Amino acid sequence: MLITRRVEFSASHRCANGGLSDQENRALYGEEANPRGHGHNYMVEVTLDGAPDPVTGMVYDLKLLKQVLNQEVVEPMDHRFLNHEVPPFDRVVPTTENLAAEIWRRIEPHFASGPARLHQVRVYENEDLFVDYLGDAA
Amino acid sequence: MLITRRVEFSASHRCANGGLSDQENRALYGEEANPRGHGHNYMVEVTLDGAPDPVTGMVYDLKLLKQVLNQEVVEPMDHRFLNHEVPPFDRVVPTTENLAAEIWRRIEPHFASGPARLHQVRVYENEDLFVDYLGDAA
Amino acid sequence: MLITRRVEFSASHRCANGGLSDQENRALYGEEANPRGHGHNYMVEVTLDGAPDPVTGMVYDLKLLKQVLNQEVVEPMDHRFLNHEVPPFDRVVPTTENLAAEIWRRIEPHFASGPARLHQVRVYENEDLFVDYLGDAA
Amino acid sequence: MLITRRVEFSASHRCANGGLSDQENRALYGEEANPRGHGHNYMVEVTLDGAPDPVTGMVYDLKLLKQVLNQEVVEPMDHRFLNHEVPPFDRVVPTTENLAAEIWRRIEPHFASGPARLHQVRVYENEDLFVDYLGDAA
Amino acid sequence: MLITRRVEFSASHRCANGGLSDQENRALYGEEANPRGHGHNYMVEVTLDGAPDPVTGMVYDLKLLKQVLNQEVVEPMDHRFLNHEVPPFDRVVPTTENLAAEIWRRIEPHFASGPARLHQVRVYENEDLFVDYLGDAA
Amino acid sequence: MLITRRVEFSASHRCANGGLSDQENRALYGEEANPRGHGHNYMVEVTLDGAPDPVTGMVYDLKLLKQVLNQEVVEPMDHRFLNHEVPPFDRVVPTTENLAAEIWRRIEPHFASGPARLHQVRVYENEDLFVDYLGDAA
Repeated sequence: MLITRRVEFSASHRCANGGLSDQENRALYGEEANPRGHGHNYMVEVTLDGAPDPVTGMVYDLKLLKQVLNQEVVEPMDHRFLNHEVPPFDRVVPTTENLAAEIWRRIEPHFASGPARLHQVRVYENEDLFVDYLGDAA
Repeated sequence: MLITRRVEFSASHRCANGGLSDQENRALYGEEANPRGHGHNYMVEVTLDGAPDPVTGMVYDLKLLKQVLNQEVVEPMDHRFLNHEVPPFDRVVPTTENLAAEIWRRIEPHFASGPARLHQVRVYENEDLFVDYLGDAA
Repeated sequence: MLITRRVEFSASHRCANGGLSDQENRALYGEEANPRGHGHNYMVEVTLDGAPDPVTGMVYDLKLLKQVLNQEVVEPMDHRFLNHEVPPFDRVVPTTENLAAEIWRRIEPHFASGPARLHQVRVYENEDLFVDYLGDAA
Repeated sequence: MLITRRVEFSASHRCANGGLSDQENRALYGEEANPRGHGHNYMVEVTLDGAPDPVTGMVYDLKLLKQVLNQEVVEPMDHRFLNHEVPPFDRVVPTTENLAAEIWRRIEPHFASGPARLHQVRVYENEDLFVDYLGDAA
Repeated sequence: MLITRRVEFSASHRCANGGLSDQENRALYGEEANPRGHGHNYMVEVTLDGAPDPVTGMVYDLKLLKQVLNQEVVEPMDHRFLNHEVPPFDRVVPTTENLAAEIWRRIEPHFASGPARLHQVRVYENEDLFVDYLGDAA
Repeated sequence: MLITRRVEFSASHRCANGGLSDQENRALYGEEANPRGHGHNYMVEVTLDGAPDPVTGMVYDLKLLKQVLNQEVVEPMDHRFLNHEVPPFDRVVPTTENLAAEIWRRIEPHFASGPARLHQVRVYENEDLFVDYLGDAA
């Protein structure tokens, strides 16, 4: 059984590779490469996979899940400029793809010892564009 | 090919295990354990898996699907207090996980003889929390 | 200028007038009169009317507005059975209309001394039904 | 990693099989068989599967993806009556199932040579009904 | 106090004035003038203005309101081609503006004798375009 | 009759008054004052007030309205850092209130000579916070 919890945060980003020229970045990323950056209301859906506990009827303690997401995602990323304030985005381009993988990397250890394992991280840059990351093995 | 239909119902529930003390239930479920219960606009997405019929172009008769969902889900659960009026929630904690499994149990026999089989039941408690159940074999 | 902030809470209610028979209540309210109650994810939009402060550019301090809404609406009503736990709904039928008026009554004094005045309280019982209350003078 | 982009178009359709009588079509499709047709704001979510490019951090060039969707889906289908103006729906019943498969057929060749492959086409007829097509192999 | 109920229907329309040439209609309406028509999932929000009844706590009987909307809007318009099947749109251009005024004209008499009066009809052609009609006096 | 069109853009902003200390700005705006800025998917709803033209059935030419909104709002603001790239926000704090008023100031002249006049500009910073501006006279 899969259980999914959604959190949101607002952040700025700029998509540009430091090893490329402005012209190359503009060709690759279009307006996403504007030097001053721009922002989004990011929406993150984190999905855990497990069996409901026979006593509690829950796959995972939702209060604990919320705490993990606040600590690892919302607190460090909300109201921040990702490229300047949230490593590794000082050196990794903060595309939605890389953001989903980074959120996975940050939260996955919290679920390593059970009772449910991390199944998927979905990140919506806006309602028309989203990325699903299911870990390296997927 | 998968086809999904969404239905909604409004119900009350209380998350508490009768074998535990009030204090234990409060520790487990937080405010979900409040004795008088509280409620949600539940949203249910039922997904069938099948091949479109070559004559009709349909995986399943949508009028029939709607009828099954009304009979097994909306009519017995809408405007009800799940713990008091919808078995087995008089003895099973009505977490979103257990609710998804119960909806599966109720509707699955309708699809046992084809032409499409039940693939998934998703239940949203609200837009920030949802559960997917894919059957015991999943 | 109007500024609107949305908050949500989950609660149970039952629409029935204690002075009427079960049959009369059923005729008036339909399934809303079911004795055990049922619930909703209520959405509340509170609108203030004022001029942006020339220094801050804000009509009202949003941190303060959030605090008022938490104290007067979310904390006393979230995860509650309105008829049993939230006065005056032990004696006033908790229709969406009466709920909007009660939220107005609770929060209006916080805005009586400026800098912005309460303009409207909108309550969504679900996405297909909502009520706007603009105060007695409206 | 999966990346999904959403596009929308407005179109008319009528669900009826030319080899069946009006009465049979009515029995099969209900009001969807009304002769003059009716319409929807269709929403299409196209999902690609690939690894983020180590230089760009992108699974696929989003500007190119948008161009493919405009050319193959939005331009030929938007503001059209599918049965009369969008082959093969002059001879294939434009159910949501068949529409999802046709969109797959039209866009899949664009992704045949990499760097990402087409994973899924989801079509919403409205927010309560949607179809997922994952290709013949799925 | 205002109470609003939302209903939806799916219909086709074509925006073109019979007294104008194809070229003129194309210049006026763009793709909305395509001869075969196209369609939308229309969303209609009907708002009544009144005082809650002191006994029932309701501005208007919601079961009756739903019945009026089904009879006057959903049944005659759902799954129809407005220009061909829903007068006066055989001679009046079915723009969203004219559709809102026609819905007002159809339902207003039901509220003429109280206890609440019709305040507004809002019609969404899609989520990015909507019209509000408040009657001739507004 | 009122007609409303919605457009969206993504931008960064920082709420801080240059005449105040960092500490004062932090006290006023909370995390909105973070020096590097953050961002939102802004949603703008522009409402015009007029009578439908008897020939066209339209309050205003929607193609022209879209063009005005693209030219005055989306093109200059999308993918920008408002404080650094969109005057007057180099010297005016880009609160949602001030952003709504600035959008009004930019687009109002386009409607000064009819046939419809600008009625309201609504700006959503996110789905839980929005501002309505109705002009100085309101």
